[in-house]
Amino acid sequence: MTMSKPLVGIVTGSDSDLPIMKQATDMLDRFGLPYEIIISSAHRAPDKTSEYARTAVDRGLAVIIAAAGVAAHLPGVIAACTPLPVIGVPIKSGALSGVDALYSIVQMPAGIPVATMAINGAKNAAILAAQIIGATDPALRQKVIQYKDELARAVEDKARRLQELGVGGYLEQMEK
Amino acid sequence: MTMSKPLVGIVTGSDSDLPIMKQATDMLDRFGLPYEIIISSAHRAPDKTSEYARTAVDRGLAVIIAAAGVAAHLPGVIAACTPLPVIGVPIKSGALSGVDALYSIVQMPAGIPVATMAINGAKNAAILAAQIIGATDPALRQKVIQYKDELARAVEDKARRLQELGVGGYLEQMEK
Amino acid sequence: MTMSKPLVGIVTGSDSDLPIMKQATDMLDRFGLPYEIIISSAHRAPDKTSEYARTAVDRGLAVIIAAAGVAAHLPGVIAACTPLPVIGVPIKSGALSGVDALYSIVQMPAGIPVATMAINGAKNAAILAAQIIGATDPALRQKVIQYKDELARAVEDKARRLQELGVGGYLEQMEK
Amino acid sequence: MTMSKPLVGIVTGSDSDLPIMKQATDMLDRFGLPYEIIISSAHRAPDKTSEYARTAVDRGLAVIIAAAGVAAHLPGVIAACTPLPVIGVPIKSGALSGVDALYSIVQMPAGIPVATMAINGAKNAAILAAQIIGATDPALRQKVIQYKDELARAVEDKARRLQELGVGGYLEQMEK
Amino acid sequence: MTMSKPLVGIVTGSDSDLPIMKQATDMLDRFGLPYEIIISSAHRAPDKTSEYARTAVDRGLAVIIAAAGVAAHLPGVIAACTPLPVIGVPIKSGALSGVDALYSIVQMPAGIPVATMAINGAKNAAILAAQIIGATDPALRQKVIQYKDELARAVEDKARRLQELGVGGYLEQMEK
Amino acid sequence: MTMSKPLVGIVTGSDSDLPIMKQATDMLDRFGLPYEIIISSAHRAPDKTSEYARTAVDRGLAVIIAAAGVAAHLPGVIAACTPLPVIGVPIKSGALSGVDALYSIVQMPAGIPVATMAINGAKNAAILAAQIIGATDPALRQKVIQYKDELARAVEDKARRLQELGVGGYLEQMEK
Amino acid sequence: MTMSKPLVGIVTGSDSDLPIMKQATDMLDRFGLPYEIIISSAHRAPDKTSEYARTAVDRGLAVIIAAAGVAAHLPGVIAACTPLPVIGVPIKSGALSGVDALYSIVQMPAGIPVATMAINGAKNAAILAAQIIGATDPALRQKVIQYKDELARAVEDKARRLQELGVGGYLEQMEK
Amino acid sequence: MTMSKPLVGIVTGSDSDLPIMKQATDMLDRFGLPYEIIISSAHRAPDKTSEYARTAVDRGLAVIIAAAGVAAHLPGVIAACTPLPVIGVPIKSGALSGVDALYSIVQMPAGIPVATMAINGAKNAAILAAQIIGATDPALRQKVIQYKDELARAVEDKARRLQELGVGGYLEQMEK
Repeated sequence: MTMSKPLVGIVTGSDSDLPIMKQATDMLDRFGLPYEIIISSAHRAPDKTSEYARTAVDRGLAVIIAAAGVAAHLPGVIAACTPLPVIGVPIKSGALSGVDALYSIVQMPAGIPVATMAINGAKNAAILAAQIIGATDPALRQKVIQYKDELARAVEDKARRLQELGVGGYLEQMEK
Repeated sequence: MTMSKPLVGIVTGSDSDLPIMKQATDMLDRFGLPYEIIISSAHRAPDKTSEYARTAVDRGLAVIIAAAGVAAHLPGVIAACTPLPVIGVPIKSGALSGVDALYSIVQMPAGIPVATMAINGAKNAAILAAQIIGATDPALRQKVIQYKDELARAVEDKARRLQELGVGGYLEQMEK
Repeated sequence: MTMSKPLVGIVTGSDSDLPIMKQATDMLDRFGLPYEIIISSAHRAPDKTSEYARTAVDRGLAVIIAAAGVAAHLPGVIAACTPLPVIGVPIKSGALSGVDALYSIVQMPAGIPVATMAINGAKNAAILAAQIIGATDPALRQKVIQYKDELARAVEDKARRLQELGVGGYLEQMEK
Repeated sequence: MTMSKPLVGIVTGSDSDLPIMKQATDMLDRFGLPYEIIISSAHRAPDKTSEYARTAVDRGLAVIIAAAGVAAHLPGVIAACTPLPVIGVPIKSGALSGVDALYSIVQMPAGIPVATMAINGAKNAAILAAQIIGATDPALRQKVIQYKDELARAVEDKARRLQELGVGGYLEQMEK
Repeated sequence: MTMSKPLVGIVTGSDSDLPIMKQATDMLDRFGLPYEIIISSAHRAPDKTSEYARTAVDRGLAVIIAAAGVAAHLPGVIAACTPLPVIGVPIKSGALSGVDALYSIVQMPAGIPVATMAINGAKNAAILAAQIIGATDPALRQKVIQYKDELARAVEDKARRLQELGVGGYLEQMEK
Repeated sequence: MTMSKPLVGIVTGSDSDLPIMKQATDMLDRFGLPYEIIISSAHRAPDKTSEYARTAVDRGLAVIIAAAGVAAHLPGVIAACTPLPVIGVPIKSGALSGVDALYSIVQMPAGIPVATMAINGAKNAAILAAQIIGATDPALRQKVIQYKDELARAVEDKARRLQELGVGGYLEQMEK
Repeated sequence: MTMSKPLVGIVTGSDSDLPIMKQATDMLDRFGLPYEIIISSAHRAPDKTSEYARTAVDRGLAVIIAAAGVAAHLPGVIAACTPLPVIGVPIKSGALSGVDALYSIVQMPAGIPVATMAINGAKNAAILAAQIIGATDPALRQKVIQYKDELARAVEDKARRLQELGVGGYLEQMEK
Repeated sequence: MTMSKPLVGIVTGSDSDLPIMKQATDMLDRFGLPYEIIISSAHRAPDKTSEYARTAVDRGLAVIIAAAGVAAHLPGVIAACTPLPVIGVPIKSGALSGVDALYSIVQMPAGIPVATMAINGAKNAAILAAQIIGATDPALRQKVIQYKDELARAVEDKARRLQELGVGGYLEQMEK
């Protein structure tokens, strides 16, 4: 938030989504991608929401991440008001565990896409934002490649530990 | 559309919904309820949509019916911009047969209700509009009562015919 | 309950629904809308239920809210016996988490609409009742407008606090 | 319908269900079980429906079969008004292909059971009716046993034919 | 179990289902209906299961209740081997919360019905058993009628208490 | 069917499944794997079914493929009566399009596995049978490897053709 | 395909997806975005698929669109092998109408995002690709803005026509 | 892991799956079937995964068990790279409780089967592996037969205990 020129805008429909969305901001911090994060609502603050979307290009944003639960209109409503790529994060909440949010976000009609992540997939939203900006920024792309290498190494480490400890030993260690 | 002062506004997300929505206008015609019907879209024409919703009270509307398919944001987006009761009609279309539209319309967050009808339930939307306006209009309520009486009589007629013809005879007559 | 002339009737299928339905009565209290609330059951007390519905108009009710879980027939059974608008609230309970109640309430056949809310959407049922009665009551409509303004301001307040505190600070404060 | 003393009452919510329900009447004819069939509706003709259920015992019925689609309240509403066993047949219709009817019928709350059949399972409703009445009628039970023997023999016949003709030959014959 | 001549046989697929199935035995005790209860399994003890079903008529049973979870084949496998009416109770267990059990039980092919109850609907299975046997036993039917009267009175009592205490007071009392 | 010593037994619950199951027999023919195919039914011919399963080892079978729709108990019932690996094919039929069959087959309880294929996945059932027998038969495994090479080559061919013709040209050719 | 330097790579799992994917190539043509399209398969041609993904950056691609049906692994498998943003299009096919493909594509684990479109949302995949590349290409972004203006105008045109013709007249004209 | 020549390879997508997969290794230990278990990931370690699958035959494996949650591509990706039979175990995790993993694993396209187990069905995966290898190993098949006999005896024991203790007594003993 203290960064001078945000490239990624994060809009979250409710402050109850913040624990999930912190996974996105942590990931953006890791990539060194400047961002801003606001709370808005397609239903409770429609003006604020469309105003935010309409001014996004002029404020220099390159990507918007929008998160919402239940009848999750926020990503689609933002996508309607900006030519920027919009990434949608369906939040798990309520009786339908996020399936309602998933369908409300992913099933956008022809003309207005929303790049939909898994339910609660805030971390991946940040990675996709880095990939999108990295499409024309070789240094950032390099960070994405490094990150993926780390993922592979982490799997390798766990595999090695499992081979050393066996299933029983590994499980004991996990419980500690 | 030629009626001087519409009480019911119908907004449909796409002209492909019109064959379904005609069931609503036919029903409103039957109740003698003046209405207007427009095509708009929460995603393709967001300004037009919110403008319509914002001016609805001043134009004298009492109820708005909004129909949309897939990620059906139209009813919720309208409800966000008006204090009028909004009736939502999920339209069956696409791979999910309207379940996506149903969830997108009915699972509205606390604060902004949408009175949701069955998938493709345009006729019921019109009846509910009549019931809502009839809540303070005895003459209109009387028409609703008459309509329900007719429904009961129609069942009675069919029951009588079934008793006369038997299952086989009735089915033969249905096929004619 | 102590109000002299209720405009809204609330019928709940079981006393286990009362914690949810209190959100409706709190909201009606806020709008100053007089209501009555009863427990009845489409299956265990069918006579009481249809009697209640049949006499609703004469007792001066303008809207009925009905809540039920699982095979939730209560709203539809009431709607069958009154020309008043009926608002249905599917209650989350049992193995299917309220999807059964949602389908049982929203998928009403042509002729007998039920204005369906989200699963556990009792608060919205009360707001919709206010919107319906407010359709012909400017003072009440004004209260709905004020309520929506407050919703927008609450979003604004949270957004400002998030900007001041950052994600980490905001989350810390939430946990307190 | 021309039988002097029906033991099975069939109630169907709409005449569009009759082609399916004919499978039930054909099966009852085969078992020689006298029945009556009426059209009624929990929503469009609530009085007729509850009257029918309330008088069922006195008219000598032993079992009631009720069929309905979408928000299928008919079987549950009838079960609420009679101590007789009620068999429910969810009818496939509308956007949800009968899942709504299945949930509306099978998920009855404790106290009021409905013996639910498969979606469109009208034939099985008739067989279950025969099994129920056959529970205390050895001659009828014998007919059920004979019917099940025939089912087994029919499988045997097909198996033999498949062995003789091979898959290709069998499929050719099926197409004829 | 100590009753000399059971009329109802209860088969449960696993002892983990017993806490649910006790609701059935309690209800049968209340109706004074003699029953037996065994553990068997369509998959782990197929011989025992089909033997039980095949001998049911000769042992004097009138109805069988079968309960099972996940791929719940037990009720169908029993129904395949007896002309008696079989009541199926889908048990909530595993990742799919009983939807798998419900579909495995209710979607029986033509010829072999299973009278399916709600997920975990053991109590209703017992009531249906009483209704089935009561179809030709006036004294038992009278008990069913009394039971339904008590259900209605219990609703009446709660309704009265709610009227006296109001929502807030009632909820306080519930928490005690 | 004319092969002297079948290694694969195919059991199908109904002759309406044969058009799908022919994909399995064609595939087994291609691999030169001897098989037998019978029609049986867990519900209509339970004795024949369990007899078949019980004698499978002695008749020299190595794998059984069982196909069924709706409440598809056939694969599980067979698996209960044989130590051989059983491959289950859920058939698409009825109102639920095979989801019921899928759940009925795949959600087997601990102890009695069924190797479940996709809905209508008869071809894959045959390939899996070849892989299972090929696990200890190098010549058969070689045929599986060849088959997979052909799959890759077929993709390569189509890719090349698409490059030559472009999307438009390719689609024109497909329509011919 | 004849374009000298493709920026968008389209990979489709089967030539049966090409009629849908042509909506993407048409849209890219409209935006003047150079692309290449190949057929590959995560399962039938795994080497070709990962080779394609691994070399994508060096060949100058900025975005990859991958389409697949049923157990749709193609987009995720490609995303595993490239730092480029990958857009996934679930194709409607088979018994589950594309829900399986949707879940297989959207529910990617943390670390490897796929930007998921609606079922059959090929057109939106192309628009998102343009938005992604347009994030740093003002001329392309301008084309996206123009496209969205056209969408709004098309809605406006239809709305005007509806006002002129009325519902009945409009429907008549649609049928022509 | 200390066994000299593994016949079964277990690949798990994440160490969070190990508590479930230990049910498979325990079962393989019981059958005396040598196995190896590794952690790999179709998405985070695609090279390691395909390398493992490609070398499986040469390392002497006869069967591979692969477990994964959410968009569970691991079993299919392995099946694409080996002629061995691959058993897939969908893991329950995330908002969709494993339905996403089930669809991602079972709905494999024609050509590349995965033998799918129930959600979290790790134990059955081991039993199926024993059945597959036992198809040509009489001693191992004998162990499978013994295991199934034990399952039947365990049911018998519980049934006897229930008969002795009654439902109430049995439940008391379970709680201890």
